[in-house]
Amino acid sequence: MKRNIRFLLEYDGSRYYGWAKQPDQEMTIQGKMEQLLARITGMESVEVIGAGRTDAGVHARGMVCNAHLETDLPVDELRSLCNQYLPDDICVLEVKEASPRFHARYLATGKTYRYTCCGGPLKPVFERKYVWTIPAEWHPDLNAMREAAAFLTGTHDFASFCANPRVKKSTVRTVDSIEIAQHGPFLTLTYHGDGFLQHMVRILTGTLMECGIGWRTPSSIPELIEARDRKQAGMTAPASGLCLMSVDYN
Amino acid sequence: MKRNIRFLLEYDGSRYYGWAKQPDQEMTIQGKMEQLLARITGMESVEVIGAGRTDAGVHARGMVCNAHLETDLPVDELRSLCNQYLPDDICVLEVKEASPRFHARYLATGKTYRYTCCGGPLKPVFERKYVWTIPAEWHPDLNAMREAAAFLTGTHDFASFCANPRVKKSTVRTVDSIEIAQHGPFLTLTYHGDGFLQHMVRILTGTLMECGIGWRTPSSIPELIEARDRKQAGMTAPASGLCLMSVDYN
Repeated sequence: MKRNIRFLLEYDGSRYYGWAKQPDQEMTIQGKMEQLLARITGMESVEVIGAGRTDAGVHARGMVCNAHLETDLPVDELRSLCNQYLPDDICVLEVKEASPRFHARYLATGKTYRYTCCGGPLKPVFERKYVWTIPAEWHPDLNAMREAAAFLTGTHDFASFCANPRVKKSTVRTVDSIEIAQHGPFLTLTYHGDGFLQHMVRILTGTLMECGIGWRTPSSIPELIEARDRKQAGMTAPASGLCLMSVDYN
Repeated sequence: MKRNIRFLLEYDGSRYYGWAKQPDQEMTIQGKMEQLLARITGMESVEVIGAGRTDAGVHARGMVCNAHLETDLPVDELRSLCNQYLPDDICVLEVKEASPRFHARYLATGKTYRYTCCGGPLKPVFERKYVWTIPAEWHPDLNAMREAAAFLTGTHDFASFCANPRVKKSTVRTVDSIEIAQHGPFLTLTYHGDGFLQHMVRILTGTLMECGIGWRTPSSIPELIEARDRKQAGMTAPASGLCLMSVDYN
């Protein structure tokens, strides 16, 4: 009988075309995991189910995925083998036995994403691949950003903040909280919600940044939500600044 | 008249063949700085004097250098121009007017280097280029390392810890302090001294690690110093874990 195994992963997305496997594209996290688990277990093919899809260049400190595996290996040995063979920009933090019905995508009840910007006159040499380096002349006003964030918090139709205009399913999501904090030159936006549409965190971040630097006003946010039109929202912040921090399950 | 300009630099050494310029090797920090300053000032050639040479792959958070420049540009504008044209893994933190006699190498009275190791079963995904990832089965004993470090502190002939066996100048140096600390999986060794020989910090770190994991005893250190023989010291720890933190001047 196959066991259902749950994994907690960390990865530096810089070199990858995102989570989701693609034909003719070797460099995806899901693809690397499926290949590796097939190799370790000797199974012909393995399907790895992720909690969500991270875009090309997006990082994760807490991606959850599961796979049904034919193997007798103890979970600790599975973790060691994964870390031995995975490239050094992907790490399996935890491996656990899950109930047969555990499904990393369907059962996820919430997600935390953190977006990190770096401002000021100096370039972030050591953090450059994990931030959005904003122009030195931008001096985002945190109060304006927080005021705008308050309008975005709650249950809304986020169609204006979705990269895919032909999405068929509901674009209603609940964003419980958006915390905005400054630590030296680093400005972090931490989002918690029940789920996020394609590029949603990056478009929210770009829009909040535009409020921070005065290109739009916080009070314009309600009509922007109302419009359900991607073209009216702000820029898509770059992938490098985004990191999936954790996924919730009941 | 030429002005003597002093620079404070930060760089990620991963992509570079070290500080010192080399014929037929584009990727050196000194080379990048000299090229850039010639371009900015319109001078035919510029000599940049560094406080010391960092090896290929070694990082810096506080390298000091100086150059005699023919330019009227204010120091802040010089800094902006440098940061605009330098690759994103080198940053000029400060630019100052220096006295005509300031010399970044001759007048340096002390240096601080930090070496960072990462142990434990998990790979450091986001810090992997800035640490030495030691094997999971190594469990360094900090007390043994500190005991060994106490023997190394002080004024000694460090010939056993010098990569260059044909060095003609004195190999006597004073190491004031070696602080060893653990933060989660990261083990840091912070060295302060009046100067360091070629690979000296990396060989000291390799030797201290060997004491930590029981391959040699702390009490064997005095005779190792006495031997003045590189072959009797420990391994050379990898460049990636090393960072020049600061340079002292009176």
